[in-house]
Amino acid sequence: MSGKAVKAYEELVARQVEIARLGSIMGLLGWDEQVNLPRAASAARAEQLAYLMGLMHRRATAPEIGELLSIVEGSELVADPAGDAAVNAREWRRAYDRLVKVPPSLMEELERQISLSQGIWVEARRKSDFSMFSPALERLIALRKDYARAIAPAAPLYDTLADDFEPGATAEELARVLSGLRDALVPLLSAISGSSRRADVSILRRDYPVERQRIFAQAAAAAIGFDFRAGRLDASPHPFCSGIAPGDTRLTTRYDPRQFGQAFFGVIHEAGHGMYDQGLPAAHWGTPRGTSAGMGVHESQSRLWENFVARSRPFWQHFLPRAQQVFPDALSDVSLDAFYFAVNHVEKQFIRVEADEVTYNLHVLLRFELETALFSDQLSVRDVPGAWNENFKAYFDMTPPNDALGCLQDIHWSGAAFGYFPSYSLGNIFAAQIYAQARKEIPDLEEGFTWGEFAPLLSWLREKVHAHGMTYRAPQLIEKITGGPIDHRPLITHLQAKYGELYGL
Amino acid sequence: MSGKAVKAYEELVARQVEIARLGSIMGLLGWDEQVNLPRAASAARAEQLAYLMGLMHRRATAPEIGELLSIVEGSELVADPAGDAAVNAREWRRAYDRLVKVPPSLMEELERQISLSQGIWVEARRKSDFSMFSPALERLIALRKDYARAIAPAAPLYDTLADDFEPGATAEELARVLSGLRDALVPLLSAISGSSRRADVSILRRDYPVERQRIFAQAAAAAIGFDFRAGRLDASPHPFCSGIAPGDTRLTTRYDPRQFGQAFFGVIHEAGHGMYDQGLPAAHWGTPRGTSAGMGVHESQSRLWENFVARSRPFWQHFLPRAQQVFPDALSDVSLDAFYFAVNHVEKQFIRVEADEVTYNLHVLLRFELETALFSDQLSVRDVPGAWNENFKAYFDMTPPNDALGCLQDIHWSGAAFGYFPSYSLGNIFAAQIYAQARKEIPDLEEGFTWGEFAPLLSWLREKVHAHGMTYRAPQLIEKITGGPIDHRPLITHLQAKYGELYGL
Repeated sequence: MSGKAVKAYEELVARQVEIARLGSIMGLLGWDEQVNLPRAASAARAEQLAYLMGLMHRRATAPEIGELLSIVEGSELVADPAGDAAVNAREWRRAYDRLVKVPPSLMEELERQISLSQGIWVEARRKSDFSMFSPALERLIALRKDYARAIAPAAPLYDTLADDFEPGATAEELARVLSGLRDALVPLLSAISGSSRRADVSILRRDYPVERQRIFAQAAAAAIGFDFRAGRLDASPHPFCSGIAPGDTRLTTRYDPRQFGQAFFGVIHEAGHGMYDQGLPAAHWGTPRGTSAGMGVHESQSRLWENFVARSRPFWQHFLPRAQQVFPDALSDVSLDAFYFAVNHVEKQFIRVEADEVTYNLHVLLRFELETALFSDQLSVRDVPGAWNENFKAYFDMTPPNDALGCLQDIHWSGAAFGYFPSYSLGNIFAAQIYAQARKEIPDLEEGFTWGEFAPLLSWLREKVHAHGMTYRAPQLIEKITGGPIDHRPLITHLQAKYGELYGL
Repeated sequence: MSGKAVKAYEELVARQVEIARLGSIMGLLGWDEQVNLPRAASAARAEQLAYLMGLMHRRATAPEIGELLSIVEGSELVADPAGDAAVNAREWRRAYDRLVKVPPSLMEELERQISLSQGIWVEARRKSDFSMFSPALERLIALRKDYARAIAPAAPLYDTLADDFEPGATAEELARVLSGLRDALVPLLSAISGSSRRADVSILRRDYPVERQRIFAQAAAAAIGFDFRAGRLDASPHPFCSGIAPGDTRLTTRYDPRQFGQAFFGVIHEAGHGMYDQGLPAAHWGTPRGTSAGMGVHESQSRLWENFVARSRPFWQHFLPRAQQVFPDALSDVSLDAFYFAVNHVEKQFIRVEADEVTYNLHVLLRFELETALFSDQLSVRDVPGAWNENFKAYFDMTPPNDALGCLQDIHWSGAAFGYFPSYSLGNIFAAQIYAQARKEIPDLEEGFTWGEFAPLLSWLREKVHAHGMTYRAPQLIEKITGGPIDHRPLITHLQAKYGELYGL
């Protein structure tokens, strides 16, 4: 009986690795679409992806998977809930029960439309013309509604979508978390606005030649621990990280020759994602045990490196002299204090990925509110630009001058990734909790940054986060690391302390 | 009955397009492997490719394909042998009858070893160490022998391999063609060696900054008609062209900042391939009707643009002033005559892809002789460097100083593309025949080059070659275009006239 279960488990692993291999091939095609694809090839790429998605979906919903899974679930293999087999069986079951409800034709059509919509979005954003993008957005929303309805006819559609990124999340709970953040952040933002201190941000808007930006950012990503023998860095319209396959993790960023921060912090953010992917246990690749623990945890890794490390004073104590060597014209007259303040300058602005730590979560909240309205039919696509601008005005007291700086700025909707945005805020919260714990456990953590030592932090994250794969869901993982539940207060404490000092509050 | 055949044909087309789609995905993975792949990802990429190859092979050898094909073959759909259905049925049958004899596991293993061998070859070439590459070469030869034996147990193995690139070719016939060329070229080469005229090749070995080379070559490729909306240009260790999918044709080259010709003529060569791919009838994509007519014809397109166009005096009448703008330091003192002579300088040298038109086919002959010896067990892998150098000495009266300049120089063996090299010489022969005909039919063809007009030639090639896809095999296509059989004399006439004038023979 046990022999039968072991055999069933082994066959399941083999099948799931095959499915993951198809996913990794799709990952490469998706990366290439963002980075390299000639314009005329959009349709061909969409067909390639739709075909692979159909293939993958049929493999993932084969009745044999359900049968094999039942054998494993009824065996002693799953006795230890944190054991490899139990973790895999738990997540396979969850995925299988969801996927079998979705027709393959819907999955193919979604993938095809996502692929086609990427190019349309890039063009629409370039021309700042929402009307170019809205038919594609209509289609993607309609398809995602069909998808959510197929999986859970009775549940709020948004819950089903968010659950893909954050298992167990609901719109109600996310609203509670996000408004908790808002309630603490709005007064902080208001206090900062009232401060007479102002960073000199003009130092970040000097000449920063693109090729030098690339070299500097790549060197910094390598210094904090991203392994470029097993990865690369390219340019794309929207920064992202793609963990394609073992040994193949790819970062992208975008460059502005008159702006330092966007590309640099984009690279560090994506390198945070990338180091998580590179730290997942390779022996378990293709199974949940070797996969990340949801997008909130994934974003915690990117935000931790971006904000808690790369926007810290010790980090720049080490890197500013190096930046001055690479950008002598722009930076030779800049002090550490001035630079540190500039890269932490708080300012209401239009673009989420360029937002500071204080305003960032308000950008997320805005998107979350629009998405939940779209999926509960309280907002129609044609009203998106108006609703965006209205909500933006409410949170930031200013109105985007065009849709490129408004509702067209993010790649997520063109990828039908509705329900993703809250993961960013969860990531911020988790990052603060995890980082606070790291400071307790690693002696002289930030002192090490001043001489360029980041390995102790990466090793600690490898052990505490990366090595576990999907063994624990986010709440359990946070509990295991910090001894307590998910809690937004460490983030607030961090922001109050840091910005209180910077702005003399 | 006819309805049944029509339905069978439609299903066959759908199945073959699906197979072609898998091939196009493999094409992207192969391109990415040469251009982008992080070193640590070799094994993962090999597994992806092996998996797709297995999938494709199983699809391509499904019994239903044979059954559907029989229905089509017995119907009136194939009455006109140049009709779409007849052309497709003819080539599907040929491919199917070959493929069903090869076990899927062999195809997967071949693909896996090819992928793994690429990285090994790159390293071995870099270190000029044949012993690093020889185990991979042993494996690839053994697998290709198994492959050839599976397809045609009684036939000479090399014939079966060459047939993949040049349908109907045999080692005996190729030997006849190549020795015919040799007999005419050796005296020509000897006459040139005896001439007192010498080109000043130092003008091509000045400072040519890589980024400017890229811009200049890309502009020239666009000017002759390669469509960059539907393609791109990158760098890789060995230049190649990959026609991945409709709208997605990718060229690569390699740059030397102290050498002008290698990258430039490489790009024009690959653009010749690329324009053929871009000119194939897109409506027939995925079927033989929309596929190139074998590698000899493919090479005719690259060699025609590279040698007959881009190494001509009228071409440089137009482009030299432009080159002088891009490379003022290197070229401002260079006359048209000097430049034209330099890019047509005949010299025995070690690297095939840098060889001039006169010596090129001798490089091919050398490889052909080694390959036929390897596949008839008259040569073992460990003796390859010695045999290479010995034959090289016989043809060129000099010995490669190392294996990077000798038997490690070409990518083909690491791709298990044994039997490919003769296609280059066939391409040279076809190119001369096709170009001689173009000169007859297009008024003022070369005069147009002097003011940058290449569209008449491309349109003519589109109509005479590209539009036909695989409708005609190479001999029929040449007959259709020139009214006569395959004939190496136009190539010899061209070389004698051109080099007779340059070297005052």
